[in-house]
Amino acid sequence: MRVGVLTGGGDCPGLNAVIRAIVRKGVQEYGYDFIGFRDGWRGPLEGETVPLSIPAVRGILPRGGTILGSSRTNPLTTEHGVRRIKGNLAKYEVDALVTIGGEDTLGVAATLSDEYGIPCVGVPKTIDNDLSATDYTFGFDTAVGIATEAIDRLHTTAESHMRVLVVEVMGRHAGWIALHSGLAGGANVILIPEQRFDIDQVCAWVTSRFRASYAPIVVVAEGAMPAEGKMILKDESHDSFGHVRLSGVGEWLAKEIERRTGKEARTTVLGHVQRGGTPSAFDRWLATRFGLHAIEAVRDGDCGVMVALRGTDIVRVPIADATARLKTVDPTLYAEVGVFFG
Amino acid sequence: MRVGVLTGGGDCPGLNAVIRAIVRKGVQEYGYDFIGFRDGWRGPLEGETVPLSIPAVRGILPRGGTILGSSRTNPLTTEHGVRRIKGNLAKYEVDALVTIGGEDTLGVAATLSDEYGIPCVGVPKTIDNDLSATDYTFGFDTAVGIATEAIDRLHTTAESHMRVLVVEVMGRHAGWIALHSGLAGGANVILIPEQRFDIDQVCAWVTSRFRASYAPIVVVAEGAMPAEGKMILKDESHDSFGHVRLSGVGEWLAKEIERRTGKEARTTVLGHVQRGGTPSAFDRWLATRFGLHAIEAVRDGDCGVMVALRGTDIVRVPIADATARLKTVDPTLYAEVGVFFG
Amino acid sequence: MRVGVLTGGGDCPGLNAVIRAIVRKGVQEYGYDFIGFRDGWRGPLEGETVPLSIPAVRGILPRGGTILGSSRTNPLTTEHGVRRIKGNLAKYEVDALVTIGGEDTLGVAATLSDEYGIPCVGVPKTIDNDLSATDYTFGFDTAVGIATEAIDRLHTTAESHMRVLVVEVMGRHAGWIALHSGLAGGANVILIPEQRFDIDQVCAWVTSRFRASYAPIVVVAEGAMPAEGKMILKDESHDSFGHVRLSGVGEWLAKEIERRTGKEARTTVLGHVQRGGTPSAFDRWLATRFGLHAIEAVRDGDCGVMVALRGTDIVRVPIADATARLKTVDPTLYAEVGVFFG
Amino acid sequence: MRVGVLTGGGDCPGLNAVIRAIVRKGVQEYGYDFIGFRDGWRGPLEGETVPLSIPAVRGILPRGGTILGSSRTNPLTTEHGVRRIKGNLAKYEVDALVTIGGEDTLGVAATLSDEYGIPCVGVPKTIDNDLSATDYTFGFDTAVGIATEAIDRLHTTAESHMRVLVVEVMGRHAGWIALHSGLAGGANVILIPEQRFDIDQVCAWVTSRFRASYAPIVVVAEGAMPAEGKMILKDESHDSFGHVRLSGVGEWLAKEIERRTGKEARTTVLGHVQRGGTPSAFDRWLATRFGLHAIEAVRDGDCGVMVALRGTDIVRVPIADATARLKTVDPTLYAEVGVFFG
Repeated sequence: MRVGVLTGGGDCPGLNAVIRAIVRKGVQEYGYDFIGFRDGWRGPLEGETVPLSIPAVRGILPRGGTILGSSRTNPLTTEHGVRRIKGNLAKYEVDALVTIGGEDTLGVAATLSDEYGIPCVGVPKTIDNDLSATDYTFGFDTAVGIATEAIDRLHTTAESHMRVLVVEVMGRHAGWIALHSGLAGGANVILIPEQRFDIDQVCAWVTSRFRASYAPIVVVAEGAMPAEGKMILKDESHDSFGHVRLSGVGEWLAKEIERRTGKEARTTVLGHVQRGGTPSAFDRWLATRFGLHAIEAVRDGDCGVMVALRGTDIVRVPIADATARLKTVDPTLYAEVGVFFG
Repeated sequence: MRVGVLTGGGDCPGLNAVIRAIVRKGVQEYGYDFIGFRDGWRGPLEGETVPLSIPAVRGILPRGGTILGSSRTNPLTTEHGVRRIKGNLAKYEVDALVTIGGEDTLGVAATLSDEYGIPCVGVPKTIDNDLSATDYTFGFDTAVGIATEAIDRLHTTAESHMRVLVVEVMGRHAGWIALHSGLAGGANVILIPEQRFDIDQVCAWVTSRFRASYAPIVVVAEGAMPAEGKMILKDESHDSFGHVRLSGVGEWLAKEIERRTGKEARTTVLGHVQRGGTPSAFDRWLATRFGLHAIEAVRDGDCGVMVALRGTDIVRVPIADATARLKTVDPTLYAEVGVFFG
Repeated sequence: MRVGVLTGGGDCPGLNAVIRAIVRKGVQEYGYDFIGFRDGWRGPLEGETVPLSIPAVRGILPRGGTILGSSRTNPLTTEHGVRRIKGNLAKYEVDALVTIGGEDTLGVAATLSDEYGIPCVGVPKTIDNDLSATDYTFGFDTAVGIATEAIDRLHTTAESHMRVLVVEVMGRHAGWIALHSGLAGGANVILIPEQRFDIDQVCAWVTSRFRASYAPIVVVAEGAMPAEGKMILKDESHDSFGHVRLSGVGEWLAKEIERRTGKEARTTVLGHVQRGGTPSAFDRWLATRFGLHAIEAVRDGDCGVMVALRGTDIVRVPIADATARLKTVDPTLYAEVGVFFG
Repeated sequence: MRVGVLTGGGDCPGLNAVIRAIVRKGVQEYGYDFIGFRDGWRGPLEGETVPLSIPAVRGILPRGGTILGSSRTNPLTTEHGVRRIKGNLAKYEVDALVTIGGEDTLGVAATLSDEYGIPCVGVPKTIDNDLSATDYTFGFDTAVGIATEAIDRLHTTAESHMRVLVVEVMGRHAGWIALHSGLAGGANVILIPEQRFDIDQVCAWVTSRFRASYAPIVVVAEGAMPAEGKMILKDESHDSFGHVRLSGVGEWLAKEIERRTGKEARTTVLGHVQRGGTPSAFDRWLATRFGLHAIEAVRDGDCGVMVALRGTDIVRVPIADATARLKTVDPTLYAEVGVFFG
């Protein structure tokens, strides 16, 4: 029995922990052979492989990123994509494929499994925590931890100068990182993509915080939008060199707040720091358990499924369930934390 | 409506986050008054109080420990304990009591609520994660994070000298911290109180690790015991000053491993560092949500209940359910991680 | 004897440690009274004060920011500025003033001391480490630590996607933070304001790094400039709302590198995170010793001097020496680290 | 030209950074060949080598420990030690030897260089910072940072239970780690080997801290001793298995404080955690610069010297100067920080 492994989409702390668990258990308990495919679906598409064995996965548990590389290549939109993948899996005598990825990567796995009979087992990965059918995805806890530490640091510099600090965190379609890090960091305003914000309300919270002699921290997900729909995100303008320049919601907010409240405001865009580096203990635990259960699903011949967290248990769900719709922040939950605003 | 709050038992990162959430929501949404009782059950027993208001809970979210102090005082074993508590609650016009604590503190709350009609709402707290009826307790994630970081550090010093490093972590009756930090830290042996260990097996794992040219890390919960039952934990001997000296399982293990394998071994006992300092983002999130839901239970007049985590939801359960029995590590789960031993 | 204390300019981890040391030693060893002035020179200018005593400085050692607040108010450019300060110092019966600040704040202190007979003792503060006459200033080590941790994290995400990551760190006129964090973080290119960079050389280093199968990290100080002088920093363009938008060197570099090498590049601007939060152990040590020696200078009546670090000793130098010229990175030192480029 | 490299004595964060800098500069700027010797002096003694090249040192900058391994082997006390080393250096055609180590390792290098004509260049290494002739050694800043973070954490748990926490840190002969971490962590008592402590005075400080309604932290170097000389450190007693058991000063102190003040006291022995893991940014900077200058000394044929830090410069000093006497804490410096005791 030979098992292929690939990692697709944006990188995420914990990917290496999954790979290590799969290989370790597969080799030791089931006597499987392994082969790694490079750069997501590009690997099986182009037949680019790397050896995977117990020595190859030693020491990778605490390392961020993925030893297999990643890409956003989609074989379903590539000419003869499925045929080429089938050819390469046959060539390398791969009996099953563990695909670790987000919505896109897993969507391909579901199609290949369900429609083309390629035996795929999925492992959910998204730093944004917006995959349905699992309580949490690994990488999310690490990102929240990094954002929270940044917010902790920004409080003191905000207080010293009595200025507003706007922190833009990841989250294009779902506000999980903003919600968790904002709550954990004691933010005074948290804005998420799920609910358009009222800039007047934001300014009212900011002003109320200053009235209590404190400096406000505003945490905003990159995908959050004002209610009036006036802000054009990621619009194109050109700098003096003709380069396109992006304007983010964080920068926009700082300026609007300054203009409306008369208070100095500054923006920090956390960016890629949120997705790099060593995974938190929670993410190493979750990623490792996902890996152990994924290879169990392979052994059971249970294809087209994805491993998922339910409470403290790892369960199996159809991949399609996870990719069917985005898991967004429930309005009730958002309302619950509103008691800390202002 | 006036609500009393107390924190009992060993301190735990996140206690202040609970207190803050209770007060913030209680005052802002329900217009309640608050009163803090000092040092667990000693507060209502002796009528020692501290004021609790929104200004009093500002800035405490990221702080470890508890602004209310703590103790292990048990009013049920104190003369006229219940009567004195009833008297003081009446004196301070307290309508409900939120009790934040572990098995002992909550056990008292259950009795006072169920048998004496004192309206108590419980919030589960234990760094050891051994309370039934909740997926996790706050403080646990912080402790696991600290232990994991220590294990990460010990790997390199172990490798440089090719010696065994034994890390003793908290966990008298349950091995959760050992299991999670050992897995996350890539330990080669994890020993927990739930399953007596075979010292020969431990040495076999240690030797096998050296054979692969790596230095082993052994993580042991303070309550773990050898199968043969020969080790006397916390036995009494006396040093040159007549002081009693404690011998822990970590120190014992290092010596046994040295004696049996001929390899140098060192012990690190993490101790109180695991329970101090700023809570992790996860624990701040969990503690805050526990606080928000506890005060909701108070508003609903739902006494004798405890808030608990189920998946991503906060639910209410009878306090008695939580204190009825210890939540220990399931043998299946322990077997699952065994693939990384050796 | 009553001593005034103020903190001016941008905030910096360690300011509170200085204040604590001054008050602690002043009260305990010399029996002095203290008074804090709010928001830098605005405090003595407008007579805004805060009480300073041993209880007031308890627990502030690990806290970032400054309990006294800060501002960039310059009394020398304010009408009747010196007269008003003299008036308020007389009113509050202040015998000496400890001024903690950077070039601007200390420059005022030098003038007030040397030309107007106001007894000032200076404590150097700049996160950028660009003050002459002292080996290091506190805050710098913390900023370097934060930037290094960010660079560590960015390596793995860069490797996973084989893209260039540009990290923009603080340093408008001096490249100390870029140099130290870039070296400590294993950056492949470090660009500083002291030496205009050749974009072709930068791209050659980037390409050479990819050739060795690694992904490059480029660390750039915010004040670094290309040799050809084509880049207009902080130029004004306007977004769709008419707001001025700033273009930084980091963003510019990423785009130039993409355009010239054909490799994907991303930018992270660390921003205010570098100056907030708890000081490193080194900075707490340095700040505390500065405070202890500053109050000693007050006791000696040694005015117009500033405390400074020389090796492991704290010495006194004329304030004017420190503010006379910027301490920039020596070309020899920059050349020394060039061996790690590419 | 071929250069040998070895690391001796206890491991220390930063060793790998030194090795990397030596190899990187030696290969790139001078075109040298390199050979690594395993486990300190054992390597050249027994002819055990590892290849050293630029690829071999990639990625090791942030890693603790040493890729060359370490030992305490002393060739001067080994039969035919010098002859065997000379033989192996000839066999492997080694023209110069960079020896990275502490007092013992460097003492050997001095003798081999001065008396036997073996060209050695030294790099000082000691986590304890007790080597003369250099302002700081790498590893020290990391150890102080780890100890300070632990002390930060212990404050909150001490306050919650109003108990004394004794923290035992490294430092057998010199109190540098205790002094720096104790000061940075806001300890209330700091005890160092350089000055015997008076247990009555310690208890007076403890009591005074409680009187101010705070819980005291006592930081003690492992080599600190009471004035009356009654404590027998590391004495031998035997547990129920016949194992020797060590009694440290931390444990002794906690018990004496409990006995004399009636306050609960707990001990934490930080142990090996202080010397493991990734080096701080400061240590990576210092270690790298030491490496760069050591290979420069090799190129200059400047043997028998050691690189050293003086202010912000790296200088060369005779190895013998560094090993001649221990650098201990000056009584004046210790007195200076006494203002924070109690």
